Amino acid sequence: MSQIPSSDRAPEAVVVIYSGGMDSYTLLNRYKMQGCTLYALSFDYGQRHKKELRYAGQVCQTSGIPHKIIDIGQINQLLAGSSLTDNIQVPEGHYEDQSMRSTVVPNRNMIMLSLAIGYAVSVRATKVAYGAHGGDHAIYPDCRPDFVAKMNAVAAVANYDPVVISAPYLHWTKTEILREGLAMGLDYSQTWTCYNGREQACGRCGSCVERLEAFAANGQTDPLCYE
Amino acid sequence: MSQIPSSDRAPEAVVVIYSGGMDSYTLLNRYKMQGCTLYALSFDYGQRHKKELRYAGQVCQTSGIPHKIIDIGQINQLLAGSSLTDNIQVPEGHYEDQSMRSTVVPNRNMIMLSLAIGYAVSVRATKVAYGAHGGDHAIYPDCRPDFVAKMNAVAAVANYDPVVISAPYLHWTKTEILREGLAMGLDYSQTWTCYNGREQACGRCGSCVERLEAFAANGQTDPLCYE
Repeated sequence: MSQIPSSDRAPEAVVVIYSGGMDSYTLLNRYKMQGCTLYALSFDYGQRHKKELRYAGQVCQTSGIPHKIIDIGQINQLLAGSSLTDNIQVPEGHYEDQSMRSTVVPNRNMIMLSLAIGYAVSVRATKVAYGAHGGDHAIYPDCRPDFVAKMNAVAAVANYDPVVISAPYLHWTKTEILREGLAMGLDYSQTWTCYNGREQACGRCGSCVERLEAFAANGQTDPLCYE
Repeated sequence: MSQIPSSDRAPEAVVVIYSGGMDSYTLLNRYKMQGCTLYALSFDYGQRHKKELRYAGQVCQTSGIPHKIIDIGQINQLLAGSSLTDNIQVPEGHYEDQSMRSTVVPNRNMIMLSLAIGYAVSVRATKVAYGAHGGDHAIYPDCRPDFVAKMNAVAAVANYDPVVISAPYLHWTKTEILREGLAMGLDYSQTWTCYNGREQACGRCGSCVERLEAFAANGQTDPLCYE
């Protein structure tokens, strides 16, 4: 039997959860290079680093990718206690530190993935992708392989059309993700990482520390300006 | 070993997804009678039968149960095509009919359960309960036993604290749920069921038809006024 030429297959439609940070920026471009039909989805959950949403919007506009920013700020009435949204100081240092636990928003990824799955069903996309990676495992239960496997199981049965949850960086370090992006020729000045949403990145929060280490490990200089 | 006297155990804390309809009203009262600490959670998703939320609010106020109504109307930007929210006529007749498929909101229960799980983690509740029942299976994939089992699996690993999804009416008919509620002495004039949010219930939509049949099967008259 002859194979169907690839040009006769409809391109795969993928909803990418796109925060505006470096991991999801790389993820978006990975699927773009694979020729997928993309739907970028960002969430405004009252994060103090809302600046990342502006970066996300800019990238999608330039690339002609449909982009939705959904305001789920109302749900903060339900989800108390994260320093990413409340008036708690953002901790400095590494993700492995216990203090970083204060950045955990209860059930955040399940909420975002649930909305993304609903969106995928509506636009007839077969896949939802998000940028969970190995560095997140220690602190965020909803970035672990077991969580992704179980979300996949439920996403297969929750609607008439099954949706696949894809997290291709699940076992990668941030350094490896950046390496892939640099090899694709991506411009990381189009991404925002810092958890403090000030004019320039702080260079001290867990997010900044990891980003700077990833650039150093790749022998590159981060194009972003730091305080 | 002697058993711990029940008075020494902390009452179980349960988040109940409470639409204001008869199933979730019965559910709420079931846990109330078990002595649980209750947190009622309703969703305003732009449903045309918003009236049910007023009924829910009234019941919680009378019973002294903390009640949150979360406006998730923003997500309608993502979830196209349900007659419950869009300008599509609500179909009449039984749930088993194909036309009732137009009342399916993509991924609705996964979205609501995800938010309820986040709320449960925040208030240290160990359980989220919702009123899925046997009559919903034919049309709503996210009311089926397989969905509930898989949501339970993911709710166990998504946060530091596991949350149990409980759907005690999963294999019950609406008639059986009503029978339990009538045996508890509940007053169903405090519930709203009709999918059309007019002054009086229409008596013809799938929801009304099932409600009226359940009362008839229990040999009772529905205390609500119909058009």
